[in-house]
Amino acid sequence: MVKKIEISYPSSQKIYLKGRLYPDLRVGMRQVTLTPTVKIVNGKEVKEENEPVLIYDTSGPYSDPDIVTDAEKGLPKMRLAWTEGRKGTIMELAKQGIITEEMEYVAIRENMDCEAKGIKSHITPEFVRRQVAAGRAVIPANINHPEAEPMIIGTDFAVKINANIGNSALSSGIEEEVEKAVWSCKWGGDTIMDLSTGNDIHKTREWILRNSPVPVGTVPMYEAFEKVNGKAESLTWEVFRDTLIEQCEQGVDYFTIHCGIRLHNVHLAAGRLTGMVSRGGSIISKWCQVHGEESFLYTHFDDICDICHKYDAALSLGDGLRPGSIHDANDAAQFAELDTMGELVQRAWAKGVQAFIEGPGHVPMHKIRENMDRQIEKCHGAPFYTLGPLVTDIAPGYDHITSAIGASMISRMGTAMICYVTPKEHLALPDRDDVRTGVVTYKLAAHAADIAKGHPGAALRDNALSKARYEFRWKDQFNLSLDPERALEYYKISNEVGGKYCTMCGPHFCAMRISQTLEKETNGQSTCEIL
Amino acid sequence: MVKKIEISYPSSQKIYLKGRLYPDLRVGMRQVTLTPTVKIVNGKEVKEENEPVLIYDTSGPYSDPDIVTDAEKGLPKMRLAWTEGRKGTIMELAKQGIITEEMEYVAIRENMDCEAKGIKSHITPEFVRRQVAAGRAVIPANINHPEAEPMIIGTDFAVKINANIGNSALSSGIEEEVEKAVWSCKWGGDTIMDLSTGNDIHKTREWILRNSPVPVGTVPMYEAFEKVNGKAESLTWEVFRDTLIEQCEQGVDYFTIHCGIRLHNVHLAAGRLTGMVSRGGSIISKWCQVHGEESFLYTHFDDICDICHKYDAALSLGDGLRPGSIHDANDAAQFAELDTMGELVQRAWAKGVQAFIEGPGHVPMHKIRENMDRQIEKCHGAPFYTLGPLVTDIAPGYDHITSAIGASMISRMGTAMICYVTPKEHLALPDRDDVRTGVVTYKLAAHAADIAKGHPGAALRDNALSKARYEFRWKDQFNLSLDPERALEYYKISNEVGGKYCTMCGPHFCAMRISQTLEKETNGQSTCEIL
Repeated sequence: MVKKIEISYPSSQKIYLKGRLYPDLRVGMRQVTLTPTVKIVNGKEVKEENEPVLIYDTSGPYSDPDIVTDAEKGLPKMRLAWTEGRKGTIMELAKQGIITEEMEYVAIRENMDCEAKGIKSHITPEFVRRQVAAGRAVIPANINHPEAEPMIIGTDFAVKINANIGNSALSSGIEEEVEKAVWSCKWGGDTIMDLSTGNDIHKTREWILRNSPVPVGTVPMYEAFEKVNGKAESLTWEVFRDTLIEQCEQGVDYFTIHCGIRLHNVHLAAGRLTGMVSRGGSIISKWCQVHGEESFLYTHFDDICDICHKYDAALSLGDGLRPGSIHDANDAAQFAELDTMGELVQRAWAKGVQAFIEGPGHVPMHKIRENMDRQIEKCHGAPFYTLGPLVTDIAPGYDHITSAIGASMISRMGTAMICYVTPKEHLALPDRDDVRTGVVTYKLAAHAADIAKGHPGAALRDNALSKARYEFRWKDQFNLSLDPERALEYYKISNEVGGKYCTMCGPHFCAMRISQTLEKETNGQSTCEIL
Repeated sequence: MVKKIEISYPSSQKIYLKGRLYPDLRVGMRQVTLTPTVKIVNGKEVKEENEPVLIYDTSGPYSDPDIVTDAEKGLPKMRLAWTEGRKGTIMELAKQGIITEEMEYVAIRENMDCEAKGIKSHITPEFVRRQVAAGRAVIPANINHPEAEPMIIGTDFAVKINANIGNSALSSGIEEEVEKAVWSCKWGGDTIMDLSTGNDIHKTREWILRNSPVPVGTVPMYEAFEKVNGKAESLTWEVFRDTLIEQCEQGVDYFTIHCGIRLHNVHLAAGRLTGMVSRGGSIISKWCQVHGEESFLYTHFDDICDICHKYDAALSLGDGLRPGSIHDANDAAQFAELDTMGELVQRAWAKGVQAFIEGPGHVPMHKIRENMDRQIEKCHGAPFYTLGPLVTDIAPGYDHITSAIGASMISRMGTAMICYVTPKEHLALPDRDDVRTGVVTYKLAAHAADIAKGHPGAALRDNALSKARYEFRWKDQFNLSLDPERALEYYKISNEVGGKYCTMCGPHFCAMRISQTLEKETNGQSTCEIL
């Protein structure tokens, strides 16, 4: 196991903003320093500073050179002091009118100091409190995962992305999964789900939790299913319950549980082109059918909530009947489950447990809106968390893209978190590079939605990058991008170091250079300066 | 120069559908043969045939084993017999009520024999004629490019995609560009634009035209600009005119001409974050400003139409003022140009010249709709042809994706053709692999829009692929996908040949297998059969 893990970004520093209600709060962000603009004014070179840009940072202590991380010891337990002696869950405290540390933390984190740049934000600690109290936003934060930095999932906040990692019986080991988890955080993943199904599920999860600066979700059914040797009919509430408690103890922040599948709805999937494509959903459906009984996830839902309540773990009401092909989108099976989720989310809230609703899968563009509208109608404002959706089935190998199209559309309509899809979807388990591609693809989809939704200050980064691009400040352009390493790599492939012109246009054809000659004050940077 | 070029697709045959009005018409398509479904019914294995699937085919003679291609001789000149002795342009004939060969050809091509599968289509040869007569659709088909197979660009037809190729003074050679052109056709590019700016522009274009089975577009300003050694102020109408005629003679099917830039509008770009990012647009703007005169592309627009008319070349009214950053989207400069285009397109139609309108660039999601609405309002139903749009600026290296999001959205709203963006956008010229990625990405974006728009039979391929996926007919799944080679490659990375289970789920966790055990008749194919 690699003990020390570091994350670095070019021309970037870790900075911390302090709390007001809680002066000890330190909210980490990444600050990108820019080079000055050089202009020619009346024939003279004039330099103009460019303000540094703050970037929402999911890399936690790994990008802080003052913190020495050690995978065997795990990350610093920042939240331990906050939750010691705390009475009640974050949601219960919010309902009581109490603004917790987590609430101020996420308010600062969402705003990225945009008010200092004159951009008004609706996001205050009090706004966060009201949103959490109303169930409109979730701060997943198991008291036993104090290493995680608080983040918020809700329509009125920046769109978040989740990266699935985890091995299967036939694939990677623990070290590789911890690496993938940190790797996801490096590229901007807001939460990770450990979907391991192989051996060492417990141990893999332990390593991931202790080293993850972002909330971790799981599907506890996977471990329960392994415990009964992969025989759905052998499952019992007790096996599931014990698994859930075990994972709560470890610190899992949110659980996907397919409790929306009802015995009388299982048959609705029978006429589908692609049946059930959710593993958890197919397992519990089989259990229902073999026993001819209502799902124990449904009948024991209150017990599930009581367990989650004890640890302040959140529920992700899983969509076991999500469509696996555009043909099956928006069908009776899918929407029957959504109705049940709407019932259950209120029961979770009544128990002081935060919850969100899982959705989509494969949905053609013209059917996306109905998903969002029905979720809003049936689920009482609970956050929506969707996989993609993939807007066509015909592009295996490119399903990060087919799904990013649907994900950006549904996010703009109000979905709070989107679950990434990698290029290997439908084909194989993602490797390290797939995780990077998946996370960056989903970051751009989420960011596009943030801009469209008018998230405070979302366009500052775009504007700074575009200004750098126009002024041929190549390094600034790359440093502000979602994947500076890839941008530089592509640039260098065809632009020789020391070359005189960039190969895109050659010596004469640069539109931006020609365009600048139309301005009175021209930018002094050369079009031709190659990095 | 590689003389013989072949394109092959797995389990696919080239088939031809015949015309009715023109019995000699042979419209090429790709037919994918599928393996049977094996079911276990009452304990016995039963085989059910799966109908072959027809796929719109842009690969021309290269995928027909009966045709021996020779790059030095060029492709067969199919359309020569159609246009010999023809009086008038395709649009003029359409207005006269005449259905030309091209019109029946595209009607058959759009429908892919879907009526044989019981799917009603609105696309008849007469419908095509009416659309072309009204200017609502364009069949770009220079009489001197008889090698190209007719295709149609219009809102009421399948969304088309264009791939830009072409070298710059500092990059690739002729052979590489011809390879890229054919490569684009292999992956599904509907047209190609040769944007070469370096040496040998004329010769490169000649090779591309003679070997391209799809229409070819250019920006003639590039060659004119080279002729005056890259000095915008030295340009004249005469230099431009001669260049245009030269390219018409060669057989260029459509020309991007930035004739919508008016002297009194050039200043509108001054307040922009990223000025002008269109090469043609910045060149003509500079000319206007240096001379203080109206653009000769505008003042000589009727002459331009007369030249195009002679060759039946189409016009792509270029958007020289497209926004180069989301900050500049939908501004006065952009929309002033659109107004001018709306005026010019009617003048083109009056001369019997087909035309479409270029649009977007960088546009955030919430501003896309306005682009489409205004184009419809101002441009009298002429087809819209957009670059992306990119919905955020912060993802260099991933701009095929940022732009595919915008492209699929605007296509669904009615845009008829989308111009691809490759992963190298903003960074370097695309290489062969970038062309593949760009084309496949845009194919999936266009296809997603086709499904959402209800293009007749569009979902047949999705349904066949998803059925294959659910039944573990892996090869059929890959063969029906947009990029069978990549799907297979990814699959093989982690699934060992001869292995017993696919690595995604391991032995127990396959949702589709569990789901199938819930059905009375189970599919006999194993989840575990590894290719």
